[in-house]
Amino acid sequence: MNHKELVAGIATKANLSKAETERMLDAVVSVLSDELIDGKTVGFQSFGAFEVRKKEERLSVHPSTQIRTLIPPKLVVNFKQSNILKEKLKENSRND
Amino acid sequence: MNHKELVAGIATKANLSKAETERMLDAVVSVLSDELIDGKTVGFQSFGAFEVRKKEERLSVHPSTQIRTLIPPKLVVNFKQSNILKEKLKENSRND
Repeated sequence: MNHKELVAGIATKANLSKAETERMLDAVVSVLSDELIDGKTVGFQSFGAFEVRKKEERLSVHPSTQIRTLIPPKLVVNFKQSNILKEKLKENSRND
Repeated sequence: MNHKELVAGIATKANLSKAETERMLDAVVSVLSDELIDGKTVGFQSFGAFEVRKKEERLSVHPSTQIRTLIPPKLVVNFKQSNILKEKLKENSRND
């Protein structure tokens, strides 16, 4: 499902226009991003939570040349699904 | 940031009422969850993409009792941040 289909699906479900949905989604992304950039955790009720984790720098050794490269530390966004979503996924896999 | 603060932040940014924002967020969560339960990937423009990954079953050995337990396979939602978000996080960490 791409962004366009996502907008259409949400607009139908929430009974809003596509323009309103777009505006709202932009706000969602902007608020989430700002919080994460500030290093804060964001909880998304019944869906999950986002948090930023720091991956430490590490030495990478090329398997054939043995050249060592220092991979700098980086920040990655981690998502942890809520228990509700976890249970839903579990139920679904049982029905397969 | 909890759910209430998230709703307030989005409502202010998108110039919508809190009730409309709640309705919209419910629709977002519902559409995202349905897609993921169907095993589909969902792309969230400029933020990232969600996909379901299956963790295979594995044998766990208790360190002291040596009792083996079979951990059943499970489905987990994986989030991959967009390049835009990645760059924003990177810029921020440089400013620290």
